[in-house]
Amino acid sequence: MVLIARTGVSREEWSSRFGEWYRRMLTEADIMDYRYPVKGCGVWRPYGFKLRKLILDIMRELLDSTGHEEVLFPTLIPEDMLAKEAEHIRGFEEECFWVTHGGSKPLGVKLALRPTSETAFGPMFKLWIRSHADLPMKLYQVVNIFRYETKATRPLIRMREVLTFKEAHTCHATAEDAEKNVREAVEIYKRFFDELCVPYLISRRPEWDKFAGAVYSIAFDMICPDGRVMQIGTVHNLGQNFAKAFEITYEKPDGTHEFVWQTCYGISGRVVAAVMAAHGDDHGLVLPPRIAPIQVVVVPIPYKGLEETVRSASEKAFELLKGAGLRAVLDDRPDMTPGEKFYYWERRGVPIRVEIGPRDVEKKQATVVRRDTLERTEVPLEQLVGSVRELMAKLTEDLRERAWAWMRERVRPVRTTKEARSILEKQGGVVELPWCGDNDCGLEMEAQVDARVLGTPEDVEPEPAGPCPICGREAKTVLRLARTY
Amino acid sequence: MVLIARTGVSREEWSSRFGEWYRRMLTEADIMDYRYPVKGCGVWRPYGFKLRKLILDIMRELLDSTGHEEVLFPTLIPEDMLAKEAEHIRGFEEECFWVTHGGSKPLGVKLALRPTSETAFGPMFKLWIRSHADLPMKLYQVVNIFRYETKATRPLIRMREVLTFKEAHTCHATAEDAEKNVREAVEIYKRFFDELCVPYLISRRPEWDKFAGAVYSIAFDMICPDGRVMQIGTVHNLGQNFAKAFEITYEKPDGTHEFVWQTCYGISGRVVAAVMAAHGDDHGLVLPPRIAPIQVVVVPIPYKGLEETVRSASEKAFELLKGAGLRAVLDDRPDMTPGEKFYYWERRGVPIRVEIGPRDVEKKQATVVRRDTLERTEVPLEQLVGSVRELMAKLTEDLRERAWAWMRERVRPVRTTKEARSILEKQGGVVELPWCGDNDCGLEMEAQVDARVLGTPEDVEPEPAGPCPICGREAKTVLRLARTY
Repeated sequence: MVLIARTGVSREEWSSRFGEWYRRMLTEADIMDYRYPVKGCGVWRPYGFKLRKLILDIMRELLDSTGHEEVLFPTLIPEDMLAKEAEHIRGFEEECFWVTHGGSKPLGVKLALRPTSETAFGPMFKLWIRSHADLPMKLYQVVNIFRYETKATRPLIRMREVLTFKEAHTCHATAEDAEKNVREAVEIYKRFFDELCVPYLISRRPEWDKFAGAVYSIAFDMICPDGRVMQIGTVHNLGQNFAKAFEITYEKPDGTHEFVWQTCYGISGRVVAAVMAAHGDDHGLVLPPRIAPIQVVVVPIPYKGLEETVRSASEKAFELLKGAGLRAVLDDRPDMTPGEKFYYWERRGVPIRVEIGPRDVEKKQATVVRRDTLERTEVPLEQLVGSVRELMAKLTEDLRERAWAWMRERVRPVRTTKEARSILEKQGGVVELPWCGDNDCGLEMEAQVDARVLGTPEDVEPEPAGPCPICGREAKTVLRLARTY
Repeated sequence: MVLIARTGVSREEWSSRFGEWYRRMLTEADIMDYRYPVKGCGVWRPYGFKLRKLILDIMRELLDSTGHEEVLFPTLIPEDMLAKEAEHIRGFEEECFWVTHGGSKPLGVKLALRPTSETAFGPMFKLWIRSHADLPMKLYQVVNIFRYETKATRPLIRMREVLTFKEAHTCHATAEDAEKNVREAVEIYKRFFDELCVPYLISRRPEWDKFAGAVYSIAFDMICPDGRVMQIGTVHNLGQNFAKAFEITYEKPDGTHEFVWQTCYGISGRVVAAVMAAHGDDHGLVLPPRIAPIQVVVVPIPYKGLEETVRSASEKAFELLKGAGLRAVLDDRPDMTPGEKFYYWERRGVPIRVEIGPRDVEKKQATVVRRDTLERTEVPLEQLVGSVRELMAKLTEDLRERAWAWMRERVRPVRTTKEARSILEKQGGVVELPWCGDNDCGLEMEAQVDARVLGTPEDVEPEPAGPCPICGREAKTVLRLARTY
């Protein structure tokens, strides 16, 4: 697993190595083709699309089982609607793509391609919510969003058309209910990333980097193999900001009216990049079985004169696996060697490979290989399904543990901005600096460390290693900083 | 079933009655909210979204099992790309929404919001296809498309943002393969609409009304209760038109290069309108069980003093149904009468209602009501699941037969354009006029009948009732005409 960032290799080298690996894997594992003739836009290819679907299925299951309902809104948002919430439009107006013409005619009102949908939901919530009995209302949709990015674009990580965006929007009767929902959303995302075996830090973003229009924002971040940090999910408490802008009120039991309290939370196609980055190695992707489009591939190892025997044993093994409900494939392509097939499926991250050669046939067994360690085991054919299932469970557990251990080593408490800067230069990851709580000190840290503040920990009790390195006052908490995508 | 158009009622009356019913049902059955603040755009609400999903699931199953693979393309198509196929751009340029700005900056190249995706697939097919071994390539996606409609918009039927569009795009090595694929696509759509119990006519569209850029177009049409015809699916043979425009070639086994042959086929959110229109009645929707988000609702009929007995028997019935894998709901809302609940679920088209009152409890039975006929049957509790399943199968069959019989009565062979016009005026539906095969005669028929040519039958042997009414020559086939949506 040469891919993983190690001390002693320069940040530039990790960065270019990971970057190259990532671009190659998107193509070679058939995930996304980024050669579409519009900058920042790519095409989900069949295998990538299946992976995307299996990941979204987990998210849908989590949301559906916690009282969320799926809806589907238009893409187009009129300019005046987008501008209703003052902070929001300030944050997004320079990032919007604008539709100005229908055919050759100029439109009366410019239409934005949604950069996110708070302002599309606004007018509908106003229509749908009448009384306290309508609350809470918890909706979500899976859509494409558009950002006119001026920074360098990167497939799945920073795109102009984000083809995969799950956004939830909720309304509540009280501030407490909204706050409780923020906590629930955080729990949902934890369970989601746990299913993907992707490790995360949960931080409350600083005041100066919260979602445009929110009261506060909580974010999930992961560390990539190149030491840079990628935001992979966000949860926002919107308070009554949008409710006031869109006049979303409800009638209380006592007959008076009150604005609703809102939250929203989103994840994007970045989760696929996260899975790739968390587990991939020099052979290609490594996919947790739950989301692997193909969980097990059967590869016959033919031997001159015994082709038929090997073929029929392989078929039998395949039928067993498929019959047990596993997503299995029999790779009987005649024009490829077993070695080429191994390479092909390793690239795609198929968790388990079952090899069947003459010796296996003779001993009524199969050779089972797990993708992460490439460890080989021989198992009796009659126990094949059970063994594969067991191995998939073990692989899942190991992926999760390994990825978490790797990340934890890269979150480092430091005392000074100089030390912080040096660590981020050389090793990447996340540093935690003691912080007095003053925004000016936080901004000064960003400047001195030459990094971005992720925020204060929401996942662990902060333990400041000393006083605030900027003002010298007692630290109330810590600030996480990192170089980010 | 007062909704269904009948002879003797004026076309205007049917039309307004169906129109009003349709708009009310979209709202009252929680399908789509059309009050979104952009003309021609609506929001899929939770129940409608579930119905949409179950319908798309059938389509995906049909496509996946016939060698199609799902992908996902960007929405944005550069102007120069859209313009590559000359006929295509002529057909679509006035219908496109154009993105001209990113933030406040004008874009270098205008971007169209896809009206359909032939020209988005074009450049990627060119990259993906190298040799005959790559063919056939059969891809599809489920996306939103955009049409700057100048005609009156109508929810699901004619929208500016069509939120539900399944489009398949295929490439083949020979003209024969492409032709065979057109036939397969027609078979797929037949099976699809058969699952929805929606009756259809299959017609080859006339030369002057084929898809912009196609060699020929085949369409599925249905007759709505107001006598107007709605196109619900299309299959196009593109020949080598787009392949030449986009230089999509492949290497043949003999080493020479040849342009690919292409087809494409689509269905839209109109299929939901089609299901509503085909089966609905004055009580609301009637949904075939396969696509009903809720297949059976259990309604307790409480009786003073026996509330607890009725409640627990209802719960037991619900558990039985749910345990058997049916999409069941127990409606135990305390603040509604049974009558209000009946009304509520009938609106939403739930196929089967199970009522449980004191008499049912006493006799260890349930009263089962089917949505289409509102017929009541008493069945022993222990046979409940089997009876519900049987009734669902019967209801499905009856819906299909009834809808087909209704449509068949409304396809009428006629001899003269005057007769044709009068029938369409008074009764709507479809008329079949003898046709010599000359396009000018066809266009003249459109003018004289004041209707639109659907084309020549692809589903039955045409039987002209006489000579061509325009030129008097012998008829080679018939032309179908109708007033259309």
